[in-house]
Amino acid sequence: MSGTSRALKRLVVGRAMRSDRLGDTLLPKRLALPIFASDALSSVAYAPDEVLIVLGSAGGAFAFTHSWQITLGVIFVMAVVVASYRQNVHAYPSGGGDYEVATVNLGRRAGLGVASALLVDYVLTVAVSVSSGIQNASAALPFVRGKEVIFAVLVVVLLTAMNLRGVRESGAVFAVPVYLFMLGVFTLAVVGFVRKISGNLPLAESAQFTLGPQQGMDTLGQVAMLFLLLRAFSSGCAALTGVEAISNGVPAFRKPKSKNAATTLLMMGGIAIFMLASIVTLANWTGVQMQDPDHPGNLLMNGQPVQDYHEDTVLAQLAKSVFSGFTPGLVFIAIITGVILMLAANTAFNGFPVLGSILARDGWLPRQLHTRGDRLAFSNGIITLAGMAIVLIVLYDAETTRLIQLYIVGVFVSFTLSQSGMIRHWNRHLRTETDPAVRRRMMRSRVINGVGAVMSGLVLIVVLLTKFLHGAGYAVAAMVVLFFLMSAINRHYERVGRELALADADETQQLLPSRVHAIVLVSKLHKPTMRALAYARATRPSVLEAVTVNVEPAETEALQAEWEKRQIPVRLKIIASPYREISRPVIQYVKSIRRDSPRDVVMVYLPEYVLGKWWEQLLHNQSALRLKARLLFTPGVMVASVPWQLDSAQGHEERVYDGPAPGAVRQGR
Amino acid sequence: MSGTSRALKRLVVGRAMRSDRLGDTLLPKRLALPIFASDALSSVAYAPDEVLIVLGSAGGAFAFTHSWQITLGVIFVMAVVVASYRQNVHAYPSGGGDYEVATVNLGRRAGLGVASALLVDYVLTVAVSVSSGIQNASAALPFVRGKEVIFAVLVVVLLTAMNLRGVRESGAVFAVPVYLFMLGVFTLAVVGFVRKISGNLPLAESAQFTLGPQQGMDTLGQVAMLFLLLRAFSSGCAALTGVEAISNGVPAFRKPKSKNAATTLLMMGGIAIFMLASIVTLANWTGVQMQDPDHPGNLLMNGQPVQDYHEDTVLAQLAKSVFSGFTPGLVFIAIITGVILMLAANTAFNGFPVLGSILARDGWLPRQLHTRGDRLAFSNGIITLAGMAIVLIVLYDAETTRLIQLYIVGVFVSFTLSQSGMIRHWNRHLRTETDPAVRRRMMRSRVINGVGAVMSGLVLIVVLLTKFLHGAGYAVAAMVVLFFLMSAINRHYERVGRELALADADETQQLLPSRVHAIVLVSKLHKPTMRALAYARATRPSVLEAVTVNVEPAETEALQAEWEKRQIPVRLKIIASPYREISRPVIQYVKSIRRDSPRDVVMVYLPEYVLGKWWEQLLHNQSALRLKARLLFTPGVMVASVPWQLDSAQGHEERVYDGPAPGAVRQGR
Repeated sequence: MSGTSRALKRLVVGRAMRSDRLGDTLLPKRLALPIFASDALSSVAYAPDEVLIVLGSAGGAFAFTHSWQITLGVIFVMAVVVASYRQNVHAYPSGGGDYEVATVNLGRRAGLGVASALLVDYVLTVAVSVSSGIQNASAALPFVRGKEVIFAVLVVVLLTAMNLRGVRESGAVFAVPVYLFMLGVFTLAVVGFVRKISGNLPLAESAQFTLGPQQGMDTLGQVAMLFLLLRAFSSGCAALTGVEAISNGVPAFRKPKSKNAATTLLMMGGIAIFMLASIVTLANWTGVQMQDPDHPGNLLMNGQPVQDYHEDTVLAQLAKSVFSGFTPGLVFIAIITGVILMLAANTAFNGFPVLGSILARDGWLPRQLHTRGDRLAFSNGIITLAGMAIVLIVLYDAETTRLIQLYIVGVFVSFTLSQSGMIRHWNRHLRTETDPAVRRRMMRSRVINGVGAVMSGLVLIVVLLTKFLHGAGYAVAAMVVLFFLMSAINRHYERVGRELALADADETQQLLPSRVHAIVLVSKLHKPTMRALAYARATRPSVLEAVTVNVEPAETEALQAEWEKRQIPVRLKIIASPYREISRPVIQYVKSIRRDSPRDVVMVYLPEYVLGKWWEQLLHNQSALRLKARLLFTPGVMVASVPWQLDSAQGHEERVYDGPAPGAVRQGR
Repeated sequence: MSGTSRALKRLVVGRAMRSDRLGDTLLPKRLALPIFASDALSSVAYAPDEVLIVLGSAGGAFAFTHSWQITLGVIFVMAVVVASYRQNVHAYPSGGGDYEVATVNLGRRAGLGVASALLVDYVLTVAVSVSSGIQNASAALPFVRGKEVIFAVLVVVLLTAMNLRGVRESGAVFAVPVYLFMLGVFTLAVVGFVRKISGNLPLAESAQFTLGPQQGMDTLGQVAMLFLLLRAFSSGCAALTGVEAISNGVPAFRKPKSKNAATTLLMMGGIAIFMLASIVTLANWTGVQMQDPDHPGNLLMNGQPVQDYHEDTVLAQLAKSVFSGFTPGLVFIAIITGVILMLAANTAFNGFPVLGSILARDGWLPRQLHTRGDRLAFSNGIITLAGMAIVLIVLYDAETTRLIQLYIVGVFVSFTLSQSGMIRHWNRHLRTETDPAVRRRMMRSRVINGVGAVMSGLVLIVVLLTKFLHGAGYAVAAMVVLFFLMSAINRHYERVGRELALADADETQQLLPSRVHAIVLVSKLHKPTMRALAYARATRPSVLEAVTVNVEPAETEALQAEWEKRQIPVRLKIIASPYREISRPVIQYVKSIRRDSPRDVVMVYLPEYVLGKWWEQLLHNQSALRLKARLLFTPGVMVASVPWQLDSAQGHEERVYDGPAPGAVRQGR
């Protein structure tokens, strides 16, 4: 087995490659497929379940009759979306993705809409994928049952820790499980098909039950039935999440980039459709019955609700019956499905900071998110994403069926805006293009994107109509909040930019301050003070004085005595502080200097300790820091920190984060 | 009624006085008593309950027989402790309290032990007082029942908000409820006594039940019985909490300070003993039965456990039966007891920061806690206290009976160390004192303190023995953790102090750096940059250059072009940044300057925006702040912030906290 797995690894990963060099390497298709496809392919682990659950609310017979119709609808949409994105990949090889397409073609507001939708969807990707992963894995790990929330939260925490420590995606980590997952589902499909033909495919565990309609769902009118079918279709469209990933990653492909990316996209679409179709077919053949975990009670055994039955996922039920009794088969499917869903969740951990960085560059989010190699900003993004995902998991009890109601609104907002943008793109190019062959190709692309836009828009409307009250409304609300928050941040940056801009003419010739009045703030006579005095003297200011605030008269007298004893060649000025404060007397003294000679600039020297540990920092400098923060509000003042490095600070100045940037592999950097 | 209450207020508060002037005023005894006594007097609202609950676990008859013995024991200890603290008040009029007494006489470690114990006890004072207050008030406010935890947490949050906003203790706020509480309990006692004599005192609500012994408690051996009695005694000693408060507040008294404080202490002791005795007597007369809320089921009615019975506190039960049917009487007692317990909790909010400030002065806690008028440090203390109290309330379901198990360990650690210290104090003074009259007085004081020390020590042992496993162990563990944490902080400060100290001789004549090499960090050409350049030029450094990091080549080229167009008279140096970082290239450039001319000092000027709102600050300066933090680790570098005040920063420089310091009234400041 170990020989086989090594050979397999060799096959999919190629020769051993140092993972830290991977970032410099462009991806061949066999690595790009697993890296970009884990999100899209993993959706087949929950999309069929959700279709069956929604249909099953009108009874098992209804689900059996209509599940194939719904699946065909989903497959059709997926084919259209894949075809559309193949046009994006050719037209925008820069990898800007939907945000870029929408911004360039429909304007900044449309781009911001896409961005809001994507940010919300990243959170939901984590919550849904992890919840579904836990549900799938629980078929093989019974101790997880009943503790899904705790385990889901633990997985998110684990992913967070990994990403905070800078463990990055590497081809191998992705390739092996994704190919194993594909292998698993393919084997399941083939074995199931062969057994069906040979007539010995066992029924599923849940086939022994009757799934009755939920209360009030026994006789459906035309409209109600249509609504139910559309709801099932909306849930099934969860299978489409992640399809757009490749269009963000074109620069990571080997040349010819666009062509390879388009081919990979086609492969991914084909595989996803095959998996989806196989799973639904097998589910029908084996008679899988799925009841809504939120509205249980309609799964019947001899007319009575079934008690104490743990509902496995469709994939797990299929594995149980297709591999009838061969436990390793079930364990393999359950575990590998859990793993690929974790990988899908991890893609959000990579995508979120990348999108954040682009949004920061464009002034929609705090600028520090844009700084590359800035571990702090990166960490904040990761923690925000994880925190919000955990809130959702806890709120919705780690139940995929409930979380899915919020999902895919964002995806389809993004699809629709992006495809509409593409129509504009072709319109613009057609205006100037003259080569008839190119024009023909462009017009064909425009038709494809047009169909994609209409289709995505329709699905979006269906999703909103059927799910708004079930939870999609919250997702929309979150997008709206993000949209306005980012607009406000942008307005702030623009306002500040205007305020700071130089006028065209004379402002360069700003008046030089005439003199520098230097103040060294002293609390005690120790080495940092002496260094601050020495440095301040080296700058040869017009006036130099040491200043101390008389908070404790006894201490001040002692300081004065030592000052004289040591014959320090700088005058020590003592400021009274009747209320035993530090900041206010200093600020008032500085202001009085400025009042007396308005053209002086005041330079306040603060001796500061520098320590190596964060908790040591907590124990020092606090009043200096606060004084500094207040001094900066006073016009005509500079504040100079004169550091004194304590022993514990040795070797800490180089602690700059130099790990890989998040999502580097996917961006071809 | 309103005329009466005004007259009453006049009587106890004196003429109207502006509350903001109260801090300048020393307290007459009639104001000092309520301010310092709320904690001690409020204990009688839960101590009798706890005695009856512990005794009641061996059955109602056992409780009836022994409650008076236990109460006599508690009263005896209280008399001894009051007598002992009267000696402290005379010997230490400075108000340093147990911490000072232990530090001066037994050494710094003993003082630290007292401090750890007191810090833990402040948290417990809040948790116990609020929980008991809610329980007492719930007799008049039935909607609180079953939601005690939520209401208790709300009260802590309310107290926190009040204290964070700087609402301070004022005499009136304290005096009225404390005197009303005394009035209430006295009335209860007198009416109850009169009705008993006249033979028409009704039985308590709970007297209809039989309190059976808990499982395994029906036949107690000698040892088990003794143990149970000692446990009841331990719980009863909760009545002593707060007795030491006056010894911390001597400076707040009118002259003769010590004498007035000692008198007030005596009054407080007398009142507390009278209340305690009255409540226990009435409880016996009315046949109050208290079952352990944690081990219910032994309160029987016709041999069956009582269902659906809400157990009121002893005070509430007494009010119900003494004022039989006169609802305002019950409501008054219940509400005023709730209020005085909130005041008791509030004393911890005042005491905690005061103790923190003293500990910070002595180097046991972060120094910023010592700065007077430092709202931030003050707030951190308040929030820490509230947070820990809330954790306890939630963990222990706001049940006084469970919280009390952790309580009073700290108080008796503190009593014991303080009284032992007093023996040393007298020994030391007796060594030099020659006046026979004074010596006689000192020897008498020594005997009193000796008895106090032995008694407190014995009670401490009893408390530890009987309650360690019931919860006191956690309190001890918390004290030990605090003790070592504060020791570590102290060691850190001492190590830094040694490292920074100047040698006796030449160090004052530190070599002056020969030249100043000034660098202005530039990212864009705007007003802040121009100001930084102008100020830097005003300091006339030996070398002045503007430096920019080439992160985005296009932006750098644009900057360079504008620089030349505007003919800025400072050279612009461009540093390469192959990895698109900012900090590392700058630090390496600074180091190269230092390498080339080691006697130069490098001054880095950073243009900084100053904005008025905290969220605006989040959007700016982040990379400058991080660069600065790293530059300070580099030897021979100063970092000067050149602020540019944006419009939103106008009028913010004066935002310095100038409210009263916490606990100012109690310290006589």
